Amino acid sequence: MKPINIGIVGLGTVGCGVVNVLHRNREEISRRAGRDICVTHAVVRDLEKKRPPLEANFALTSNSIDVTDNPNIDIVVELIGGVREASQLVERALEKNKHVVTANKALIAQRGNELFELASSKGLTIAFEAAVGGGISIIKVLREGLAGNRIYRISGIINGTSNYILTEMFNSKLDFESALNNATNLGYAEHDPSTDISGTDAAHKLTILASIAYGIPLKFSDVYVEGIAHITLEDMLYADELNYRIKHLGLAIRTPDGIELRTHPCLIRKDELLSNINGVMNAIQIDGDAVGPTLHYGAGAGAEPTASAIVADLVDVVRTLTTDPNNRVPHLAFQPRLMVDVPILDMKLTTTPYYLRLNVIDKPGVLADITEILGRYDISIEVISQKETNTQGRSVPIIIITHDAVEKSIMDAISEIEQLAAINGLVQRIRLERLSVVNKSVVQQVG
Amino acid sequence: MKPINIGIVGLGTVGCGVVNVLHRNREEISRRAGRDICVTHAVVRDLEKKRPPLEANFALTSNSIDVTDNPNIDIVVELIGGVREASQLVERALEKNKHVVTANKALIAQRGNELFELASSKGLTIAFEAAVGGGISIIKVLREGLAGNRIYRISGIINGTSNYILTEMFNSKLDFESALNNATNLGYAEHDPSTDISGTDAAHKLTILASIAYGIPLKFSDVYVEGIAHITLEDMLYADELNYRIKHLGLAIRTPDGIELRTHPCLIRKDELLSNINGVMNAIQIDGDAVGPTLHYGAGAGAEPTASAIVADLVDVVRTLTTDPNNRVPHLAFQPRLMVDVPILDMKLTTTPYYLRLNVIDKPGVLADITEILGRYDISIEVISQKETNTQGRSVPIIIITHDAVEKSIMDAISEIEQLAAINGLVQRIRLERLSVVNKSVVQQVG
Repeated sequence: MKPINIGIVGLGTVGCGVVNVLHRNREEISRRAGRDICVTHAVVRDLEKKRPPLEANFALTSNSIDVTDNPNIDIVVELIGGVREASQLVERALEKNKHVVTANKALIAQRGNELFELASSKGLTIAFEAAVGGGISIIKVLREGLAGNRIYRISGIINGTSNYILTEMFNSKLDFESALNNATNLGYAEHDPSTDISGTDAAHKLTILASIAYGIPLKFSDVYVEGIAHITLEDMLYADELNYRIKHLGLAIRTPDGIELRTHPCLIRKDELLSNINGVMNAIQIDGDAVGPTLHYGAGAGAEPTASAIVADLVDVVRTLTTDPNNRVPHLAFQPRLMVDVPILDMKLTTTPYYLRLNVIDKPGVLADITEILGRYDISIEVISQKETNTQGRSVPIIIITHDAVEKSIMDAISEIEQLAAINGLVQRIRLERLSVVNKSVVQQVG
Repeated sequence: MKPINIGIVGLGTVGCGVVNVLHRNREEISRRAGRDICVTHAVVRDLEKKRPPLEANFALTSNSIDVTDNPNIDIVVELIGGVREASQLVERALEKNKHVVTANKALIAQRGNELFELASSKGLTIAFEAAVGGGISIIKVLREGLAGNRIYRISGIINGTSNYILTEMFNSKLDFESALNNATNLGYAEHDPSTDISGTDAAHKLTILASIAYGIPLKFSDVYVEGIAHITLEDMLYADELNYRIKHLGLAIRTPDGIELRTHPCLIRKDELLSNINGVMNAIQIDGDAVGPTLHYGAGAGAEPTASAIVADLVDVVRTLTTDPNNRVPHLAFQPRLMVDVPILDMKLTTTPYYLRLNVIDKPGVLADITEILGRYDISIEVISQKETNTQGRSVPIIIITHDAVEKSIMDAISEIEQLAAINGLVQRIRLERLSVVNKSVVQQVG
């Protein structure tokens, strides 16, 4: 069969990874796909820039039209990143009847609804396995492998940079800034790491997973986003004493009142598999009503893991070339005309246990004041633990783990507690997730 | 679109699971598949047998011809188990132009080569996701998700019964028989558990995974099979002291001289993810040259996890109904005409470290005799540890961990050691796997 010709737009780390993997494994890939997959063109911003030598032979151009409008190219691989320019490129490629493969989670999370509609109207596919979890194949598993399930929870470590920093803080007993510096020096954090450590990157990925799990449109702006910059080593050590680790999770949970969509640091028990996912690795736990809990683990970023996902997408697109477009796997798992707009639950109404750390001037009656406020907001306490006097000898940390509490009540209670004269500074608050506890009855109540 | 009609042959636990999942989740499944998937017939051996009530409505028959030869049925789900009868059923269904979905690993491992050839010659699909790892989607991940990779190792906990028994032995400090009894009482082991505890079930599953990973025909008879009945609690406790757990693994490893295909108990380090997979759960680690290590975890058996995989297969088959058959994902990942018959390495030539336990009459010179024999067979020692005198006060256990050694040398050395007058009984030998150590250079040397 005639080879499939690929044009790559953006020849950075991932682009070179795709070229290398397609070249190195071309024989096995052809044996799987039944035909050769060849990169014929790559678009770069600067033709003069020094690049590491690539073994494959293809044309370099600085004009993306040479790819999008090239009648010999079957699939365009978008690797320029960002949203605006990438969006224009993908639209152009679709208009010119090219299928698209992309690793761009920001693009899919923020512009996916419109782009998928355009692609479907033209009988084309936009494949985006590389957008979440690198080479783990989580999109494929969720969209196809678990097609028989009613999904009720997704819990994922989906940002490798944050996971590296948190792992490094705990293992090497570092503060956040030092761990971030190490991540930057090792190339695990970008020069501007704000997208990763603010939780925005995880929110992009969570948006995509939630849409595929629940058959809802992409709702990036509805995700509650909290990063890791406020997590201290002190919190990690207290959590450790109580048998928890602190991880940054993306959570998409079905509840009777809507879908919770939130990404933030969490205490999770040490015996949970997710708490043992360390360094830059990613892992996503999916709970389905038939399959129960499953976990999917691997490198979430890097040139070749990302290339692994892109090549899988290329092979998938090649396979669908002879399918009736209406009978392909829909972009977001559910037939677009059968999507249901389940509401996203207001963050103030979510219910989780909480870890609280308060610095308290140790005098009689303080604890009574704190517990009175919590009680008034209907927040019951699972553990309360008063720590040693700190180095200044003025105040002592008190650690509280609450039972399930409504977000708004916790926030209001904390505001009141922070007003107490005996409280030094702000109250640290970190949510806690019990990943192995599943309220199956919830699953059937939701429309 | 017109609904897809399913006939189920065998209405045991899994059959009822499929009926229940298709019924309970029919609305979400239809929204994914774009059409309804309806069970219209089920074949049972005994029409009079009392069955739990099923909500779905379909015809019961005791004659499988009513399903295989029924022009209104699109897909036959084979759930009768065993090889001979199931094979005849699948052949009949294919002859009558039905696609087939099966959970039968013995059938695929032992008769898959012929059945896939027959199916392909008729443009039909046999889907078998449920045959390995229940609802984990491991077939899909390996066959499609990792299509860009050169796979170099599969290491899996793929028999839930064995994993439950080993977990229970260690956690509850039981001997093998007591743990097996518990498994039987809880329904985790069948009345005749021999297929599970002998390693045969794992060998069936390993056969399938290896074929998909390496593009080789199914070679069940070439798998080295060893079960768990000889593992003692004593070994588990010694392993624990040395920082290992004992797990029953299926291993398919690419080497320059051929593919290792073996299933047996293994010592693995406690910090490996696989060593933390407990109870009846399954997990498969796949190492690919691009993606690196990935791990895929979930329930490997049970009515609904298996049904999850079967429903995913049904949806997949429905999607391929409008594909050119030659452009579908091949049954064993690689285009049949492009399969390569890489040899399976003779077990005697495999190389692993070994855990040995010897009962030695404690007198001068014994250790020298043992190490002399090991040295003569080119077996070097990483750890040697002499334990306390045992309760009989006559002999002491000695634990040895070797460096990498060739299987044949280990076996010959053990035979000689067992001849020594100072050795009581047989030498216990358990292989050891270092899952995080990968010799990437190996990958590129193999043809």
